[in-house]
Amino acid sequence: MAFKTLEWKDGRLVLIDQTKLPLEVEYVSLGDHRQTADAIKTMVVRGAPAIGVTAAYGAALAAFELARTGGDFSSGMEEACALLASTRPTAVNLFWAIDRMKRKTSALAGLSSAEAAEALLAEAHAICEEDIESCKTMGRHGAALLPDTVTILTHCNAGALATAGYGTALGVIRAAVEAGKKVKVYADETRPLLQGARLTAWELMEDGIDVTLICDNMAGSLMKAGKVDVVITGADRIAANGDAANKIGTYPLSIVAREHGVPFYIAAPLSTIDMSIPSGTGIPIEERDPGEVAGFGGARTAPSGIKVWNPSFDVTPAGFIAAIITEKGVATPPYRSSIARLFEGA
Amino acid sequence: MAFKTLEWKDGRLVLIDQTKLPLEVEYVSLGDHRQTADAIKTMVVRGAPAIGVTAAYGAALAAFELARTGGDFSSGMEEACALLASTRPTAVNLFWAIDRMKRKTSALAGLSSAEAAEALLAEAHAICEEDIESCKTMGRHGAALLPDTVTILTHCNAGALATAGYGTALGVIRAAVEAGKKVKVYADETRPLLQGARLTAWELMEDGIDVTLICDNMAGSLMKAGKVDVVITGADRIAANGDAANKIGTYPLSIVAREHGVPFYIAAPLSTIDMSIPSGTGIPIEERDPGEVAGFGGARTAPSGIKVWNPSFDVTPAGFIAAIITEKGVATPPYRSSIARLFEGA
Repeated sequence: MAFKTLEWKDGRLVLIDQTKLPLEVEYVSLGDHRQTADAIKTMVVRGAPAIGVTAAYGAALAAFELARTGGDFSSGMEEACALLASTRPTAVNLFWAIDRMKRKTSALAGLSSAEAAEALLAEAHAICEEDIESCKTMGRHGAALLPDTVTILTHCNAGALATAGYGTALGVIRAAVEAGKKVKVYADETRPLLQGARLTAWELMEDGIDVTLICDNMAGSLMKAGKVDVVITGADRIAANGDAANKIGTYPLSIVAREHGVPFYIAAPLSTIDMSIPSGTGIPIEERDPGEVAGFGGARTAPSGIKVWNPSFDVTPAGFIAAIITEKGVATPPYRSSIARLFEGA
Repeated sequence: MAFKTLEWKDGRLVLIDQTKLPLEVEYVSLGDHRQTADAIKTMVVRGAPAIGVTAAYGAALAAFELARTGGDFSSGMEEACALLASTRPTAVNLFWAIDRMKRKTSALAGLSSAEAAEALLAEAHAICEEDIESCKTMGRHGAALLPDTVTILTHCNAGALATAGYGTALGVIRAAVEAGKKVKVYADETRPLLQGARLTAWELMEDGIDVTLICDNMAGSLMKAGKVDVVITGADRIAANGDAANKIGTYPLSIVAREHGVPFYIAAPLSTIDMSIPSGTGIPIEERDPGEVAGFGGARTAPSGIKVWNPSFDVTPAGFIAAIITEKGVATPPYRSSIARLFEGA
């Protein structure tokens, strides 16, 4: 891959600026956890697994700050983790990664701040490497579900840019290509922030994978014309019963897929599954700035003073999902038992 | 209404420039049929009934040109009508209005060119006035279907801006408001050209009607939350069996409405119904410039060189439509007989 979503370099976290892609390929270098929290909030980095890994590095940055300044390590880490957790509400990988860093912090009691910081950085590196590995394993599991010639529709960006690398839904696509399958991709542009047009289109083109862009509302015609074999998306939080929150537009896409008999797959790591939430109704849905809908990229299109509703995610009911592809294997309905089995093996 | 979609003024056709709304309210003044054809093609004016009326005035402009220049009236009108008919393929009102002007032209054989031009202008005025009247009648028929307190979701712009005035789907909304009903509207932004965000939001706000803007892909969440009582859209061409072509995104919206038990209504004049086409598969679907999808509001958003699919319309099957509201009454399933009855009364 010609780009890195995130990278630890000389004591700083370097992120590709996803708000600028694809017109500009710029990297931002973050020196502390406040800048990291801000980067998550403003979507310089986005995608459930990627924000989990970013938050883990943010916690490591906080540890180094505390080691430098001599602040109280335990309470300082507590505060930093709370700030990182306050950035976005829906993706559970964020809380999963922060919890893991907090547990590690507790286990390090007795070490010096400098030693603890090094150990926390090692933990963040581990989370990062595991994320890439789990994407690759998930990719192989998912690719096995696909025919040798296949046209895939995807929504938003569940790619290398949404993870530490390789991707979840796009990881399945990459693994299918690597397995020699003939793959054609349609990418929903994904209003309001156009992650499909800006990020999925860009990263697939960078990898030489055949991709065609459509507006979200064209998926119905595309399926009716028989041009889609499967839909694959990522997820931001999956409940214990298989209900899955993902980028707004995923739920109606799943309805349209079912209408046309097109299987709808979700690809996500186990860290996206929130076993504490029994069903999708318990998943908090972030609402974002009305300006995202009233315009784009700084240009206003709607009339001044227009009222806007801007939920950032929706929930696809388990009954609409043909399979959930994880690094521990593929869960199929009924999900309550098949998901529980994935965790037993984990 | 504080604006006029189109108006004959001092021998010229004046159109509000719908490509500039809502940020600028500008009018363009057209002196001949070539400029008129260009305005339809570039969507300075759009909406099936509005382009029909515009084409009728375009034919009248051609007649005055021929009267001035002394060109052969019959062949000159034939050429002008062919040019006007070549502008956009899907909306049948365009061909309906041009055919009516051609029939009138034939009936005028024997008159001087100047007399014929005056008679053709009178015919265009008649088409224009009938369009506004039929919108108002349609509005009353549609409003009678609605409860006293109602939340309506609409797609694209089937408003005053899509007709000579008052609107089809938005005409039903206006009539409901005039009848004292408590009406709240959600408007799909309608990618790629954002007629919902730019035109529907603007004209409803101008009329003081409560409107909230969403992205097209938010309609699923909105309906799941129980916030939509009915969906009403316009149409660009309705086949004899009730299958209806309308702005891209209407078909998936109808699937999502059915999933949530929300009735899906279409409001359109009889001139939108093409009895020569037995079903939706016969309706030609315009594909437009890829740049409309690869960018947003004039700014490029997708990577350079991206492949795009950009169908401008889709077809909603008759089985998904609860009622078709026309100026001659409301057709309900089975449509083949109920639509035929509308024409018997016409």
